[in-house]
Amino acid sequence: MSTHLTILGFNSAIPTVNSAPTAQLLEMEERHFLIDCGEGTQVQLRKAKSRFSKINHIFISHLHGDHCFGLPGLIASFRLLGRETPMHIYGPKGIAEMLETIFRLTETHRGFEIIYHELSSKQSEKIYEDQRVEVFTIPLKHRIYCNGYLFREKQKPRHLNIKEIIKYPEIETCDYHNLKLGKDFILKDGYVLKNEVLTTDPTKSVSYAFCSDTRYSEEIIPIIQNVDVLYHEATFLHDLSEMAQHTGHSTALEAARIARKAQVGKLILGHFSNRYQDLSVFTDEARKIFAETYLPQQLIPVQIG
Amino acid sequence: MSTHLTILGFNSAIPTVNSAPTAQLLEMEERHFLIDCGEGTQVQLRKAKSRFSKINHIFISHLHGDHCFGLPGLIASFRLLGRETPMHIYGPKGIAEMLETIFRLTETHRGFEIIYHELSSKQSEKIYEDQRVEVFTIPLKHRIYCNGYLFREKQKPRHLNIKEIIKYPEIETCDYHNLKLGKDFILKDGYVLKNEVLTTDPTKSVSYAFCSDTRYSEEIIPIIQNVDVLYHEATFLHDLSEMAQHTGHSTALEAARIARKAQVGKLILGHFSNRYQDLSVFTDEARKIFAETYLPQQLIPVQIG
Repeated sequence: MSTHLTILGFNSAIPTVNSAPTAQLLEMEERHFLIDCGEGTQVQLRKAKSRFSKINHIFISHLHGDHCFGLPGLIASFRLLGRETPMHIYGPKGIAEMLETIFRLTETHRGFEIIYHELSSKQSEKIYEDQRVEVFTIPLKHRIYCNGYLFREKQKPRHLNIKEIIKYPEIETCDYHNLKLGKDFILKDGYVLKNEVLTTDPTKSVSYAFCSDTRYSEEIIPIIQNVDVLYHEATFLHDLSEMAQHTGHSTALEAARIARKAQVGKLILGHFSNRYQDLSVFTDEARKIFAETYLPQQLIPVQIG
Repeated sequence: MSTHLTILGFNSAIPTVNSAPTAQLLEMEERHFLIDCGEGTQVQLRKAKSRFSKINHIFISHLHGDHCFGLPGLIASFRLLGRETPMHIYGPKGIAEMLETIFRLTETHRGFEIIYHELSSKQSEKIYEDQRVEVFTIPLKHRIYCNGYLFREKQKPRHLNIKEIIKYPEIETCDYHNLKLGKDFILKDGYVLKNEVLTTDPTKSVSYAFCSDTRYSEEIIPIIQNVDVLYHEATFLHDLSEMAQHTGHSTALEAARIARKAQVGKLILGHFSNRYQDLSVFTDEARKIFAETYLPQQLIPVQIG
């Protein structure tokens, strides 16, 4: 299954009837990663018809309410639905105290373990790794401690070229594993069959970077270089760049500059101030710098790569 | 303006796409009282097109998430909207610790004062009073400490009978206040004009009782006697009365028994378990005991009295 992103909500600060605060579901290599969890995220997950019991890892960028106030309700619902699988929560130092205080006072007995991964480093660090996927923090510059997250598929196995392989009865199915890893095959007579004859290139590994909320910061560029899709906040248009700077946010133009300098594939903007009614002004501004800029579409999955 | 109730949500436990957890807005004598505040309440308040900046008093029945997880987001939004008026929050002991921990860790600087009224008594007590309205707790029997709330309009001023009054030039407008309070008027010659000649009966004072969540408890009957409208939870039908007892909830039949014994005007049921699709089974069961039983209608105001 291809990697895809479902933006569950992208507005800033105050939820409205038609738009939800920040939350995203990234499905990558059959992992279901929830990124931020504003109030109402559990309902957005239902609207997206996602199998949200499959979420085992939640990544919270920062502890402003529009990015985390949906967490207690989501956890409580998991309990009521009989969840037993442990849940990993990544987020700023303090997230454990907040959630555990709530769970204690509301008597939310969980039935499943929560494993907190509290973050406090100002350097990018690898915080998750399995056989197929890695996740890194992207230190951002907001009013409080805040990280974006970079999700990266590891290099995938090469595809077997069966037409060629069957020409050599010496190659058995138990050898396929090494072929997929790119190893040559040595025949009994010592002849070396080059791997590129027996396999074709692997499916491209894709990557996704989530950056909300932040001031313009070129320090993130080396971390997100060449990602297939970058979500970057653009709370304001550039005529309000002073306000953006003051409140720890970016403008559409600044997001586009980051996208261009990091040579990303696509840029999706989000976290727009409620003062803007027609959101096309954001892409109008950003596309002058970076053509492949798009508005987020709530609940419509976007393929990554 | 007449007193009316807008039920913002009435489902139990898990929010769904079409139904919200418990929250109600009671508009009584120009006061706006919010009762419970499940996740998503601020969006429901917007859907109801309520002037929610007018809410100065929030009453939380108990600290289960489906009755209070909307509070942090609502308070944060009030801040962003520039609220300055103090907010009174009534709820179980612990509510201040929970909210203040959240506000500290999420750096929700408020700009307005929150005045907590933490409750721990097992007896009914008057917790709010102004010139026109009184509010009392209704101790309930749930799995954790829980109160319902009784909202009662005080006796209203009598209406002036101007046709009669103008017959007596001695009565001046500054005397109207005493007439409205029911006092007789003594003419200079000593003749006593009876108040009932000069005024007519006041508009009826109405009352509303909110009871969620609770086991069947006849102890609440003296407190809610003769209220115009009773909202009483009915999580289950009576064939699951053991489960109701076990989980600290009521059945539709039990709610109806309470309504009949307390001789209330109308009964509205709510907090139905998600296992029931067709909610008419609840009124079918309850109306055998108490005919004036109704289902809640989300976002449609109901007149009280």
